[in-house]
Amino acid sequence: MTLNEALAALGGLEATLRAYNHALGCLNYDGETVAPRNSAPARGETMAFLSGIIHEKITAPETGELIDTLLSHRDELSLKDRRRAEVLKEGRDDLTLVPADEYMAYQQLMAEAMQVWHDAKLASDFASYAPYLDKIIAYNRRFAQRKDAKRPAYDVLLDGYEKGLSHETLDPFFALLRGELTPVILEVAKRPRPDTAFLEKRYPIHLQRQFTDRVMQIMGIDRDDCAAGETEHPFTEGFNKHDVRITTHYHEDSVLSNLYSVVHEGGHALYELGVGDDLQGTLLASGSSMSIHESQSRFYENLIGRSHAFCEVLLPELKALFPEQMAGVDVETLYRAANLAEPSLIRTEADELTYSIHVMIRYELEKAMISGDLKTADIPGEWNRMYREYLGVEVPDDRRGCLQDSHWSFGAIGYFPSYALGSAYGVQMLEQMEKDVDVWGAVRAGDLRPITAWLGDKIHRYGQLLTPNELVLSACGGPFDAHHYVNYLKKKYGELYSL
Amino acid sequence: MTLNEALAALGGLEATLRAYNHALGCLNYDGETVAPRNSAPARGETMAFLSGIIHEKITAPETGELIDTLLSHRDELSLKDRRRAEVLKEGRDDLTLVPADEYMAYQQLMAEAMQVWHDAKLASDFASYAPYLDKIIAYNRRFAQRKDAKRPAYDVLLDGYEKGLSHETLDPFFALLRGELTPVILEVAKRPRPDTAFLEKRYPIHLQRQFTDRVMQIMGIDRDDCAAGETEHPFTEGFNKHDVRITTHYHEDSVLSNLYSVVHEGGHALYELGVGDDLQGTLLASGSSMSIHESQSRFYENLIGRSHAFCEVLLPELKALFPEQMAGVDVETLYRAANLAEPSLIRTEADELTYSIHVMIRYELEKAMISGDLKTADIPGEWNRMYREYLGVEVPDDRRGCLQDSHWSFGAIGYFPSYALGSAYGVQMLEQMEKDVDVWGAVRAGDLRPITAWLGDKIHRYGQLLTPNELVLSACGGPFDAHHYVNYLKKKYGELYSL
Repeated sequence: MTLNEALAALGGLEATLRAYNHALGCLNYDGETVAPRNSAPARGETMAFLSGIIHEKITAPETGELIDTLLSHRDELSLKDRRRAEVLKEGRDDLTLVPADEYMAYQQLMAEAMQVWHDAKLASDFASYAPYLDKIIAYNRRFAQRKDAKRPAYDVLLDGYEKGLSHETLDPFFALLRGELTPVILEVAKRPRPDTAFLEKRYPIHLQRQFTDRVMQIMGIDRDDCAAGETEHPFTEGFNKHDVRITTHYHEDSVLSNLYSVVHEGGHALYELGVGDDLQGTLLASGSSMSIHESQSRFYENLIGRSHAFCEVLLPELKALFPEQMAGVDVETLYRAANLAEPSLIRTEADELTYSIHVMIRYELEKAMISGDLKTADIPGEWNRMYREYLGVEVPDDRRGCLQDSHWSFGAIGYFPSYALGSAYGVQMLEQMEKDVDVWGAVRAGDLRPITAWLGDKIHRYGQLLTPNELVLSACGGPFDAHHYVNYLKKKYGELYSL
Repeated sequence: MTLNEALAALGGLEATLRAYNHALGCLNYDGETVAPRNSAPARGETMAFLSGIIHEKITAPETGELIDTLLSHRDELSLKDRRRAEVLKEGRDDLTLVPADEYMAYQQLMAEAMQVWHDAKLASDFASYAPYLDKIIAYNRRFAQRKDAKRPAYDVLLDGYEKGLSHETLDPFFALLRGELTPVILEVAKRPRPDTAFLEKRYPIHLQRQFTDRVMQIMGIDRDDCAAGETEHPFTEGFNKHDVRITTHYHEDSVLSNLYSVVHEGGHALYELGVGDDLQGTLLASGSSMSIHESQSRFYENLIGRSHAFCEVLLPELKALFPEQMAGVDVETLYRAANLAEPSLIRTEADELTYSIHVMIRYELEKAMISGDLKTADIPGEWNRMYREYLGVEVPDDRRGCLQDSHWSFGAIGYFPSYALGSAYGVQMLEQMEKDVDVWGAVRAGDLRPITAWLGDKIHRYGQLLTPNELVLSACGGPFDAHHYVNYLKKKYGELYSL
């Protein structure tokens, strides 16, 4: 195979994978948003079938040959072509570890697990979900052992979400956060609770849908390229830069839950929408890693979305749609309510200060799940114990406990640390951004495009062309250091609660 | 190839086609309901790619061999296996006429045409749509000529929607309808117009969505098996008996438009939901023909949905959701308003009496489009001329004229007559049903399940196991005779308008 033949074969394979992944993504999005409940088994069969074809194409000997050819000419390749080959090789190395039948059965398992999880969560019925989770854990453990039997299995999984990540980074990272933030959390608990009475009113869902439209408009998200769906557990799915989907959920008694879901998922969407034209259609046309992706979503959700300036912009919008519910609420009240810090049950609704403790609990649990120290049946008890120990809250039921997140159902074990890492990256990015852009002027003007342009230039346009490490170094103005994150939180909450 | 090998190969091929068709159906449904506007080109690429695989699988020599093997053992096969082979052969014979590249390009064209049509309709801009329509017409004409150059091309297309159908049946059918119904239409026009003032009020969309839920409940449609989406032009998509989707559209100034869309599409859905368990997953697991499908949708929409008994059930539901809008409206007023007969612009909103004239106009236009007598650019003028001649209405713009329907954009030329034929079949089915079931008692009880059970027994469960002709003979209690339809309309409108 010549270099040119290998490049042509790569382009052909990318087109094939694009079609199958588009179909799979569409089936998944449909399943999570609008499909009827009983559709899961047949959808699982279809997704398993199509995944089997992807497995076949990627593990085929010709694919190995094209990768070998490209990488043997490594020095002649453009950065883009080299990265396309490397990303394909990483995917191939992983898939080669799993026989096609096993891989397909796992895809079907996940499609069905997602539906079972939905029902189990509503009913707080962990027992009905446990057999599915058990199989998902076993698959991930087996996969990690095949990939590298010498390392702790959970480290191998972490590395899959963020290259080079392991307990050696995360143990001290979470220890720092716990050590520095726990005293602040305890101090905050002694201060008067902000007024949140207005949030307990009824916010009709059809008006919240209009609010979503307005928030996406402020974020500068073009609805002709990005739709907004509804689901139990919000997520973002990106097919290409003209077809991205965010999802949110609506609860009449929780207008902020929708707001911050939209801003968070909107951050993911802006990343996918901003991947460079030159990368569209290639294997590089998506986020660099889950931590980098979460750095974008958490950036918008918290650093922007929970800022005083953003509350100034939101207030008149909320008052226009919900005049009775918002009567008498001023910016300061909204800002303090949106930043209410207190130990709570639900990660996605948690304030910035306690958020990383929620993640740490999942990190510790997953370590034990994958090592085998924690049996599946014991997860609820251990979950509840850790929430009591680290956050001082009693978990009343599994719906608000270990069944709250969807991640395990789609096989994501080792993903959660990305949220905490991403949150921390974001603070360093903001410090750099403030040197180049009038961030708060842009927010107050109700137009986030200058902010997105900066992130687009430093992060979005590169897709997977640059590694997470390279992106962090460039966008954070130096190596990652979690102290920036800790200092930001101490300062923000120190001011909010007059500590 | 032995018979058993051929049967096994057929099962394998069905599984493959099921997965690809499921993916394609999902991409299409997503595209029509929730996908962002700019997603169409990439979706078109994916759909073309997947359609190309279907083309490859169906036209493969092995598929020919398995069909030949099965049909050479025709007498040993069960009815089900024989029909599976026959249906596959029909599909293969058609696909073999079109080279793979041309077929794939056509799939992409249709996906893009659908988006262009959406925009063109909104803007009443036929010119932007014309190049797409032109190519779709040319493809269909070319296909028909390849299939049977000796017959009129439009007859070949009609036969694709309803085996054996041609102008020889349809010319006298429409002549009968026009001859018998035109005098009634003219008489009705002289009578006082029913009171429809209450329909011109504002019906908020979020409440209409609740009304949809209630109507589906009355129809006995299990929402765990059937979702309801929103689209410009309502349609139904069925993947299997646990995953059917209807769609509807909401207009604040037209509560009946949503109602009758839901009842119509709900009729299609009940058919798909009722296909027998023994046929699930096979090529026979869908409706027997488009006319039979439309017989079910039009049955519920009109024979049931526009009956006095159904209005009795609807009235309290409407009053509960829309107390102000429905103040002072009694059953008689609702019944008369729901059956207002007058020449109008929009087929899907037309009353039963004038409906078949709308279909006839499309039938005549399509005949001329496919024969080449009518150039694409002249379609709007000819459309408007025929609406003036046959219905006496002036078409103010193409949005309410030749751009109103989506069918041509998904390649359906020759489909429209199914609506009129299906409407006519339904009347004969109702006459038979009334002998077995207390139809109006069931309707008045707000529970249509006894009606669906009868149709399920006579039609739904057979899927494509029986031909349209066999189904008509059995469900209509004898050969089709359009006089039943004409007599039903004359009687109903004679009473409504005291003719």
